[in-house]
Amino acid sequence: MPEIRKDPVFGRWVIIASERGRRPNEFRPGGGPQGHICPFCAGNEALTPPVIYSLPGAGGGWRLRVVGNKYPALVSEGSADKSREGLYDRMDALGFHEVVIETPEHGRPLEEMPVEAVSDVLKTFMLRVKEIKKDPRIKHVLIFKNHGRNAGASLLHPHSQIIAMPLAPLRVTQELDGAAGHHAERGTCVFCDITAEELSFKKRVVAENSSFLAFTPYASCFSFEIWILPKKHLSHFENIPEAEAGALAEVLKTALGKLSASLPDLSYNLIVHTMPVQEPEARHYHWHIEITPKLTRVAGFEWGTGFYINTVAPEEAAEILNSGGKYKV
Amino acid sequence: MPEIRKDPVFGRWVIIASERGRRPNEFRPGGGPQGHICPFCAGNEALTPPVIYSLPGAGGGWRLRVVGNKYPALVSEGSADKSREGLYDRMDALGFHEVVIETPEHGRPLEEMPVEAVSDVLKTFMLRVKEIKKDPRIKHVLIFKNHGRNAGASLLHPHSQIIAMPLAPLRVTQELDGAAGHHAERGTCVFCDITAEELSFKKRVVAENSSFLAFTPYASCFSFEIWILPKKHLSHFENIPEAEAGALAEVLKTALGKLSASLPDLSYNLIVHTMPVQEPEARHYHWHIEITPKLTRVAGFEWGTGFYINTVAPEEAAEILNSGGKYKV
Repeated sequence: MPEIRKDPVFGRWVIIASERGRRPNEFRPGGGPQGHICPFCAGNEALTPPVIYSLPGAGGGWRLRVVGNKYPALVSEGSADKSREGLYDRMDALGFHEVVIETPEHGRPLEEMPVEAVSDVLKTFMLRVKEIKKDPRIKHVLIFKNHGRNAGASLLHPHSQIIAMPLAPLRVTQELDGAAGHHAERGTCVFCDITAEELSFKKRVVAENSSFLAFTPYASCFSFEIWILPKKHLSHFENIPEAEAGALAEVLKTALGKLSASLPDLSYNLIVHTMPVQEPEARHYHWHIEITPKLTRVAGFEWGTGFYINTVAPEEAAEILNSGGKYKV
Repeated sequence: MPEIRKDPVFGRWVIIASERGRRPNEFRPGGGPQGHICPFCAGNEALTPPVIYSLPGAGGGWRLRVVGNKYPALVSEGSADKSREGLYDRMDALGFHEVVIETPEHGRPLEEMPVEAVSDVLKTFMLRVKEIKKDPRIKHVLIFKNHGRNAGASLLHPHSQIIAMPLAPLRVTQELDGAAGHHAERGTCVFCDITAEELSFKKRVVAENSSFLAFTPYASCFSFEIWILPKKHLSHFENIPEAEAGALAEVLKTALGKLSASLPDLSYNLIVHTMPVQEPEARHYHWHIEITPKLTRVAGFEWGTGFYINTVAPEEAAEILNSGGKYKV
C-alpha cells in the first residue's frame, strides 16, 4: 500500500509507492513500452483498468476514454487521518489516479486534433473534477500532461492524468499564499494584474481571443514556457462556463502548435493550476494553465535554490514562436 | 548581461541568461562536449578562464584547480539593487560562478579518489566560501555537483560548482523557515532531532563515524536519496573545523561508493545546504549535504505539486545499499 510521508523540515509531502516501482521498465532511462502493445490504442481496451467515462466515436467506437491508472500513486482505500512514526508524520496515500486517453489515434498530439476534440478533453477534465470533488476526503485535484520523454512521459499515446489527493500540496499552498499576499497589499488579483500588463506590453503574447490569453511569462523558469490565463477572474478551473471550453481549446491548440513548430522533438509538461476543490471561489486566486517545455535537464543549481536559469528571454521566445521560426537546439 | 527577474506570484527568482544559451550544444539533449577536447584535463589549462585557486600535484602539476565558469549564470559587475519593469521586479545578475576541477584525471569519480583528495575538495569549498563572503553584496553561496547526464551535467570530468548570489533563494529561505518553525514549537533543532531519531531507528543509516551520519531520509523525494548530517550542531558549512574535513570525506566517499555499487550508470546531484553567508550562527539551522540520484525524470505531478512520488522506500534503499546488492533498473 502506498503511503504519504511528511518531510519534517520543509513540510513537503512525499508519496512512497514501492509497488509502482515494480512495474516493468519503470526505471529505464528514457523508458517507454518498446516491444509492447500500446494499451491506449483502439482495440486494446482490455489492457487498461475498467473505463470510468467515455465519449462515443465513429463506427461504434470511442473518441475519448477515462480509465484508472494501472500503477496508481494514490489508492481509494484508507483514511485521510495523519499518524506518527517516531519524529515523523505519515498518512495513507488516499486518492484517485485517472488517465484521460485523449484520442484513439496513437500518433496525433493535441495540437493536431480538431478544436472540438481538444474542447472534449477540457470538458472531460472539468466533468471529472466535479465528480471527484463530491468525495469530501479529497482536497485537491491535479490535472496534468507529460508529453515526450524529456518531460517524464512513459507512454507516447496522447493522454493526460488526473490525481485527486487528501491534502493541498505545498506548491499549491505557496502559490495561493503568494496570490493572497499580493491581494492583501494591493487589493487586486495578481493574475488579473498580469493579464492587464501583458496585454499592454504585447511583446510576450503568443495567442489570444476574447476569453483567453497565452503569453511567455516575465520570469519564465523554463525556456519557451507559456501560461494561459482566462481574461475573466475565476478561481476554479472546473467552473469554466461550458460555452467557453471551445475558446480555451482554440488558444491551447494555437500555443501548442507554435511550440511544436519552433521546437524540434518537443517535450513539455502541462499543468492546470487551480484552487483546492473544497475551497469557495476566491478573489485573490485565478486558475491558469502552465506549459513548460523541457529543453534541458534541471540540475543541482535549480534543485538547491528553487531558482532557475533560463537561457532564452521570454520576449525572445515569443518572437521566435510568433515568427514560426525553428529554434536551433 | 544576465539579469534576475522575480515571479510576481511565487516570489521565485529566475536568472535570464541569454548569452549562456549561445554556447555550442547547450540544448542538445544528453549534451556534453563530444568530439571536443576536455577543458578540465591536465594539459588543457589554457581552455579554461584563469585559475582562481589550485593545489600542487605530482611532478610540478596540480591536483585540484578552481577556475571561473566560462559561461557564468551570474557576473561580478552590477548592483544588488532591485528595479521595476512595469508590474515586475528585476535586478542585475550579480555574483560569482566558479568551477572546482576535483582531479586532473578525467575518469576518476569522487568515490574512487583517496580520502585525502576528497578532503581537499571539501576544504577548497570552505576556503572559497570564506573568501567570497568577504564581498558584502553576496548573500548566499551554493555549492553543488551534477554527476552524470541525467543529473544535468554537461562535462564528464569530475567537477563541482560554486555559485555566489546577491540574495538568499526561495528554496533556502523556505528550509530556514521550516527549521525556525520547528525550533519555535519544540525548542530544538530539527536536524539534531532527525540525527537522534535515525541513530536510534538504525534501518536508514548508510554510513557513520564519530562526527557524521549518512542516511536515507524518512520522506526521501528521490529513490536512494542520501543526506549527510554533522552530529554536532553547526549552521554554516564553511565553519567546519578543518580537522573534521577528513571525517566528512570518509562518510561522503562511503555513501557515494555504495550508490555507485548498487545503481548502474549513476547520475546524481549533490547539494550543500547551509545558512546564507552573512547570517550569524543559528541554533535552529544545521548545514547538511543532500545527494539525490536521478533514476527517473521529474514529471508533471512533481512540477505541479512540489509533491514527489518515490518508488523505493528509504528503508528498502538503505538495505540494498548496505548489502552491496545491484538494484535492477
